Amino acid sequence: MSLPFHNQPAEFYINGIINGDIAVLSKAITIIESQNEKHQLLAEKIIDGIVERSGRSFRLGITGVPGVGKSTFIESFGNEVLKNGHKLAVLAIDPSSDKTKGSILGDKTRMEELSVKKNVFIRPSPSSGNLGGVARSTYETILLCEAAGFDFIIIETVGVGQSEISVSKITDFFLLLMLAGAGDELQGIKRGIMEMADALVITKADGANLEKAKMARAEYAHAMHLFQASESGWIPRTQICSSTENKGIDEVYKMIEEYKNFTSINGFFLQKRKEQQFDLFLKTIDEQLKQKFYSDPKIHAAIEEINSKKNDQNIQPFSLAKKMLEDYFNRAK
Amino acid sequence: MSLPFHNQPAEFYINGIINGDIAVLSKAITIIESQNEKHQLLAEKIIDGIVERSGRSFRLGITGVPGVGKSTFIESFGNEVLKNGHKLAVLAIDPSSDKTKGSILGDKTRMEELSVKKNVFIRPSPSSGNLGGVARSTYETILLCEAAGFDFIIIETVGVGQSEISVSKITDFFLLLMLAGAGDELQGIKRGIMEMADALVITKADGANLEKAKMARAEYAHAMHLFQASESGWIPRTQICSSTENKGIDEVYKMIEEYKNFTSINGFFLQKRKEQQFDLFLKTIDEQLKQKFYSDPKIHAAIEEINSKKNDQNIQPFSLAKKMLEDYFNRAK
Repeated sequence: MSLPFHNQPAEFYINGIINGDIAVLSKAITIIESQNEKHQLLAEKIIDGIVERSGRSFRLGITGVPGVGKSTFIESFGNEVLKNGHKLAVLAIDPSSDKTKGSILGDKTRMEELSVKKNVFIRPSPSSGNLGGVARSTYETILLCEAAGFDFIIIETVGVGQSEISVSKITDFFLLLMLAGAGDELQGIKRGIMEMADALVITKADGANLEKAKMARAEYAHAMHLFQASESGWIPRTQICSSTENKGIDEVYKMIEEYKNFTSINGFFLQKRKEQQFDLFLKTIDEQLKQKFYSDPKIHAAIEEINSKKNDQNIQPFSLAKKMLEDYFNRAK
Repeated sequence: MSLPFHNQPAEFYINGIINGDIAVLSKAITIIESQNEKHQLLAEKIIDGIVERSGRSFRLGITGVPGVGKSTFIESFGNEVLKNGHKLAVLAIDPSSDKTKGSILGDKTRMEELSVKKNVFIRPSPSSGNLGGVARSTYETILLCEAAGFDFIIIETVGVGQSEISVSKITDFFLLLMLAGAGDELQGIKRGIMEMADALVITKADGANLEKAKMARAEYAHAMHLFQASESGWIPRTQICSSTENKGIDEVYKMIEEYKNFTSINGFFLQKRKEQQFDLFLKTIDEQLKQKFYSDPKIHAAIEEINSKKNDQNIQPFSLAKKMLEDYFNRAK
């Protein structure tokens, strides 16, 4: 190639992606992740060019606390996905990847077997303050991967902060990995996450841990049963598995297949996708409205001051907010 | 009084409220609830005048599905509050009260004994789209009641929609009333509500229902135990009571006292209040930003169109949102 990648027109990327060229796909994702304005315009054109070819995949969100064995699970589960004839893309959202671009793949012990396989594409995806953890770029990376022929997408997040909530908003199925811990079973799992899960899978159900895992499954199954059925009509499942012994992994895959069939038949699958698109649109508006407002230097300073004094005085929330907005829009004129 | 109420200056209301004049308090609340711009300005002045005298109360949020016996519970529990030397205000948020102003008090069977007692003030409070169900006016009504000397405020909501979430944001303690139902124990309780509760109280624990209530308590206690401890360090409680037989009601009161002492000593009580004020301030900004944006006729029409077509085409959430905001702010200039 005579031209450096970033001087190529959108068509170059669109064609490369559609032809399944991984090098071009990777570079296109980098363009999408770039904050550079020129890149952003190029990114929009690329998305425009591939969007009609996107969507044809199953999008699986996987989360769990550090130490639950997400990478090992995905390594093992990924093989099951491949065995069933899919092309697999794994997008790993890692808060640390913002600073050290590629920190996840830098750690060579992570998914090392899976990453060298044919029909597998693994990529760290930066997290972001936007959309509570999931960057716009993660969503658009899914679209690119789909256009490149990847028909099974795993989005992996570390179970901290708010990112799991957003991941459930861009995936078809939300899988929560759990440990059968001693003592408090829900250690580290943020309130509300469990209720969003389409399935809980207890990892490391092997050796001396097997009995504990079975007990934990019963306990979780009981807790899950207390929640209302989700909108889809799907009743969340609780399973156990051992990634190292490759036990129960095929059953997780079968369960997900079952979900896909169930929600395809009742129409929920497509309906959810459409709702997600529209929700993302509205959420982006809200985020950008706020971003524009709060990045105003005068607003920023005023709010900082209010925050610093909040323990010493009675804030009157409504009149203070009203006044601040009036000032803002008067200045905008 | 020679002047009609609404022509009185702010000082009239401020003085009346501070002197504990219920008629003036009622009228001031009506002014706060009014959408009329003149009233809103007057309301701001009234709030300004009383805000330093507000805050000295315990704010208790109570929710539960229709039929759980909220009114009967409050009738019985209210007596316990009075017995302990408090002045009690009950603000009942009812979605229906928007249209039929006063529908709750219109129903004479509701809290009829409590409502005629000394040191009791009962008032329906309109719900609102703002803050997900709780109107600005509810929060400000709390302040007025506190300034009028009511030192125990109950905010009652029907357990539907989002309103419970906001109620937990303006109260010190969030109490969820539950029925020991046949079958699914969490019927009608929205996902996530249970996790926000500082206590679950199972009502109608009397007669043939007593055993069922005890079993439900054990089941709920187990489920609650699975959740992380709340920020306050308080471990949510599960109790049973019978409002008609007045059993367990004093224990609910004692538990709330215990919470008050616990969180006063560890500093959480005041800290939470301050955080709530600041959160309300930020939330109001967000709400009003959105309101201003979405009430723009061109924006409204454009979003309606996108919504109507969302099932037939691929929305590109980010570029669409970006374009819409650019148009909006260009027009604002």
